[in-house]
Amino acid sequence: MNADADPLLSHQHALQVLRDALERRLGELLPAGCESDVVARAMREATLAPGKRIRPLLMLLAASDLGASDRDPALLDLACTVEIIHAASLILDDIPCMDDAKLRRGRPTLHRQFGESVAILAAVALLSRAYAVAAEAPGLPGEQRAAAVTTLARAVGLQGLVQGQFLDVSEGSGARSVEAILATNELKTSVLFGATLELAALAADADARATEALSNFAQELGQAFQLIDDLADGVSGTGKDTHQDVGKSTLVATLGESAVRERLSEHLARADAHLAAACPEGEHTRHFVAAWFTQQLDLIG
Amino acid sequence: MNADADPLLSHQHALQVLRDALERRLGELLPAGCESDVVARAMREATLAPGKRIRPLLMLLAASDLGASDRDPALLDLACTVEIIHAASLILDDIPCMDDAKLRRGRPTLHRQFGESVAILAAVALLSRAYAVAAEAPGLPGEQRAAAVTTLARAVGLQGLVQGQFLDVSEGSGARSVEAILATNELKTSVLFGATLELAALAADADARATEALSNFAQELGQAFQLIDDLADGVSGTGKDTHQDVGKSTLVATLGESAVRERLSEHLARADAHLAAACPEGEHTRHFVAAWFTQQLDLIG
Repeated sequence: MNADADPLLSHQHALQVLRDALERRLGELLPAGCESDVVARAMREATLAPGKRIRPLLMLLAASDLGASDRDPALLDLACTVEIIHAASLILDDIPCMDDAKLRRGRPTLHRQFGESVAILAAVALLSRAYAVAAEAPGLPGEQRAAAVTTLARAVGLQGLVQGQFLDVSEGSGARSVEAILATNELKTSVLFGATLELAALAADADARATEALSNFAQELGQAFQLIDDLADGVSGTGKDTHQDVGKSTLVATLGESAVRERLSEHLARADAHLAAACPEGEHTRHFVAAWFTQQLDLIG
Repeated sequence: MNADADPLLSHQHALQVLRDALERRLGELLPAGCESDVVARAMREATLAPGKRIRPLLMLLAASDLGASDRDPALLDLACTVEIIHAASLILDDIPCMDDAKLRRGRPTLHRQFGESVAILAAVALLSRAYAVAAEAPGLPGEQRAAAVTTLARAVGLQGLVQGQFLDVSEGSGARSVEAILATNELKTSVLFGATLELAALAADADARATEALSNFAQELGQAFQLIDDLADGVSGTGKDTHQDVGKSTLVATLGESAVRERLSEHLARADAHLAAACPEGEHTRHFVAAWFTQQLDLIG
């Protein structure tokens, strides 16, 4: 029994070490400022509120599976940039003119804590901070730091999160085709996963074949995440508004739950195959992804 | 007469050539996309609507005065980044939870044309585009491209435009000290001028002394611009809402118009001295600044 249990315990312990390093570094990168610095407090609240840290953990694990050290300071900072960008995107997702959400990560949404103007300014400041952190990632050559900025900016901009948010807001209440829903999911989720894995490859100096396989992995993973999110809507305990998707055409509403569960399995199987191709010698990312989805499916029941 | 008139005409012609190059390049950097791409259209409208292009022209002229070629493609792209960031900041300045402005550059503000969610997303996408353009500036070494991103991100973020906008919104309706008004003006205007001139120095590979003098020039110029803006409030024909500042404590309201005009002269004199120190051999920027303020003061009457 012990021989089987040890690798799992050791995996859990290693994850906790990475989580602690991420929390510490995020706290350093977003200085507290003085009490009157309301935007700084809002930036910290949005980013440091307890979160799953999926994207930065994925980056650290994938880079480690590719042979990089997960203690590399540049890698840690790049991991923080995707978490900061994710936090900014959640702020904007929640504001009154978008989803007008009340709860996020178990707390009142940022605009309900700080007001709408501070929430928007905090999102803009977080995005700027993420680009600056990438541009200054310690120890990376300038060429790679500039490339990291480009990768992040593409994931955020007109062909990424911004377009996904626009499609979500503008088409959310009408009937949508399965293809339209998949396209929105791709922009809202897969694109930032794509950037996350691209930066893992960049930090690990991966070859073109591994980078391509990671990109395919990110596509499948992003779709799987969006499906889990859709399946979880209506389940309490997620820390978000329940039934936020009522009136939106999601894949669950369009295809039914069992078809969505089947698609989810397919995405996960393909994700796993791409990941195995990208990192034939590292298993951290595969364990992490498998454990995470198993846990989420248990929560949904 | 001709001997005196020629340099002026030649200066005007050179400016028009630079303006044309800027308009063309801005149009290329913000692709039109298809008709249904509403965010792309909003990004173009916000940036390409006729504007004074002060910041990018300053960058081109200052870099040229420092010995760089104003035809350098990297310099042109960096000049576009500050205009794109300026356009994004105006969008956010105008939205309902900030100034709730109706007119900008003689047209309905962006949120009145496209709705609030598209306006906010267009601002975010424009900022991302600016960072990507800087990160990819053609022909510059990676180190300098990364440094350009850092310069821009600092000007936008918590110590720049974001903080200026926050102070403007949160303190605008209460009585403020002269020092508080100057601090807000510094963040709302001088910081982006500072980044503009820093990028001019970077593109021209200027020495530390010239870079420092340009930074001092930017400080003085930013304050002068904010004073002209305050003096112009209430004057129609600026393309913006008139009397937008009613109820805000501006320097004009606090110190009176003649004291503000005196301060303006002092800022301009100091700006000119710093500029002469930075570029002892080039006069394009000095001519441009002098002509611009003369014209603005004529408009105000």
